[in-house]
Amino acid sequence: MEPLSYILALDYGGTKHTAALIVPGQNTWLAHGRVVSPPGADAAYDQTTMVRLAHELLSQNPGRLAAIGVSFGGPVDATRGVVRLSHHVPGWEECPLAARLYAEFGAPVAIENDANAAALGEWTYGAGRWCASMLYVTVSTGIGGGWVLDGHIWNGADGMAGELGHNVMRPGGAMCVCGKAGCLEAEASGWGIAAKARAWLTDERWPAADRDGLLAQAGGRAEAITAQLVAAAAAAGNTLARAVLDDAAEVLGAGLGAAINLMNPERVVLGGGVTKSGDRWWQIVRETARRHALPQTRVEIVPATLGDDAPVWGAMALAQVLL
Amino acid sequence: MEPLSYILALDYGGTKHTAALIVPGQNTWLAHGRVVSPPGADAAYDQTTMVRLAHELLSQNPGRLAAIGVSFGGPVDATRGVVRLSHHVPGWEECPLAARLYAEFGAPVAIENDANAAALGEWTYGAGRWCASMLYVTVSTGIGGGWVLDGHIWNGADGMAGELGHNVMRPGGAMCVCGKAGCLEAEASGWGIAAKARAWLTDERWPAADRDGLLAQAGGRAEAITAQLVAAAAAAGNTLARAVLDDAAEVLGAGLGAAINLMNPERVVLGGGVTKSGDRWWQIVRETARRHALPQTRVEIVPATLGDDAPVWGAMALAQVLL
Repeated sequence: MEPLSYILALDYGGTKHTAALIVPGQNTWLAHGRVVSPPGADAAYDQTTMVRLAHELLSQNPGRLAAIGVSFGGPVDATRGVVRLSHHVPGWEECPLAARLYAEFGAPVAIENDANAAALGEWTYGAGRWCASMLYVTVSTGIGGGWVLDGHIWNGADGMAGELGHNVMRPGGAMCVCGKAGCLEAEASGWGIAAKARAWLTDERWPAADRDGLLAQAGGRAEAITAQLVAAAAAAGNTLARAVLDDAAEVLGAGLGAAINLMNPERVVLGGGVTKSGDRWWQIVRETARRHALPQTRVEIVPATLGDDAPVWGAMALAQVLL
Repeated sequence: MEPLSYILALDYGGTKHTAALIVPGQNTWLAHGRVVSPPGADAAYDQTTMVRLAHELLSQNPGRLAAIGVSFGGPVDATRGVVRLSHHVPGWEECPLAARLYAEFGAPVAIENDANAAALGEWTYGAGRWCASMLYVTVSTGIGGGWVLDGHIWNGADGMAGELGHNVMRPGGAMCVCGKAGCLEAEASGWGIAAKARAWLTDERWPAADRDGLLAQAGGRAEAITAQLVAAAAAAGNTLARAVLDDAAEVLGAGLGAAINLMNPERVVLGGGVTKSGDRWWQIVRETARRHALPQTRVEIVPATLGDDAPVWGAMALAQVLL
């Protein structure tokens, strides 16, 4: 009798690593493991950890490893199978990850950055199924995205396609980490929302009760304000929090409308923590995108369905192509 | 001896129509004809005119018509071969142009809107050759664009891809024909430049001599100011004209930078009358795009080389695929 064949899907996140074992054609994880990175972890730690995790899964499930799919939390050169760098973890510069995994496990390896992998995951198994073209946008601490066009990840000439987070939506607006002002990310991401709420705490346009209330919910420490806290306060009727969240939703909607005009995708899928900010946020995002997009374009903006696992599912889809 | 085979390339413009006859594989026009539309021309006039023009070319050059490529100045449904409408000429609504041309000439027909056709033309025969991905933008009276990705026109889900002209670059900015404010087209197109120059004529930030001078060059009639006139005045040192043109170039650069972040094309090709505004305009467009695009993306912005003939060349490329 032939041994079972497996796909190994690996997600190298900034703070946690996931490995999953899948039987091709069966769209469930047979087994998986997760490891949270300790503070100060470097590329060597990440690689050793992931290899050990994978060997554990494989030794507990005897069979033949047919292919490996990898999602990496940072820019990669997908063609060469090389990690360019990690913005969070030192030591990843120009790491030939695909070659190392091949040497370790003897199976072919496909690799993508996490935004593209998540896009492919949602397209293959989640909210983007049956679409000819899809823009996936993660609205989390930062804002990034990925394209699936005609069933393939669109990488762009330098592997950078989908990076709408640093498009200037509001010239002269909030300062961004990239050095520009008014970027989509600075105005609408998790950190952007928190920063705006902090800045507006001293703005007398809003009732003192709401300003004091928001600060109190952060334990009196402005720096402890998060997007999640702003969303909760907005839902509870805090006018300052609501204005911050509405503003963020509007800028995001404008950004998506612009992307729709440019590429006219069949569907836009939104993932990431900020998308859990409630119905009002979704409504404003959709209405603003519709207003900014040309009337002849469809505007179909839906929530991602795979959550934090989207990159793992995407790694699985990447590996399927190698079979 | 076999008769010569021909491709017929047709460009239905808003104000003029071009037909060209080409021998497949020979990248020159064997014969061509042009007709300028009289004021008040409608779809029936345009169609009769073009059919007559084509029959003339064919009767003067005996042979076999192998395929027809069509560029149309307005939205089309390329899949069904149907013109949706013309924004300039009445009577084109839902016109089955491909089917009519097939019935008339007995050869297979491929059809595209003029922005996509021009993009394909530049990609196949002009400034976009040897590119895996290209954004073509025409900066003329209006601003429109088209994508060629992996050698194919990217139409989008509703045939609207490339319509970056109505992306809001400057919230609260100049009013656009589309009803929004601060669109790329309102800030950077030919009519946008002319409108801005008119609006700034009464702005005392610029020396009275330059304001009066610009008005004098338009024969004392503000409504006679054109983008071409503004560019000429800017080149001659008029500070108001220069500021208008610089501002337009900057907004365009920001729009291109945003498109580059989103899709990371290998090259951006700019056509249209406004691109003849001089070196300073090009320099500002390129520098601003570079500043807005992420550092990891290439920013290669070059002039189109086919001029007004780009849609005809694109129609020719469309037809080649049918052979």
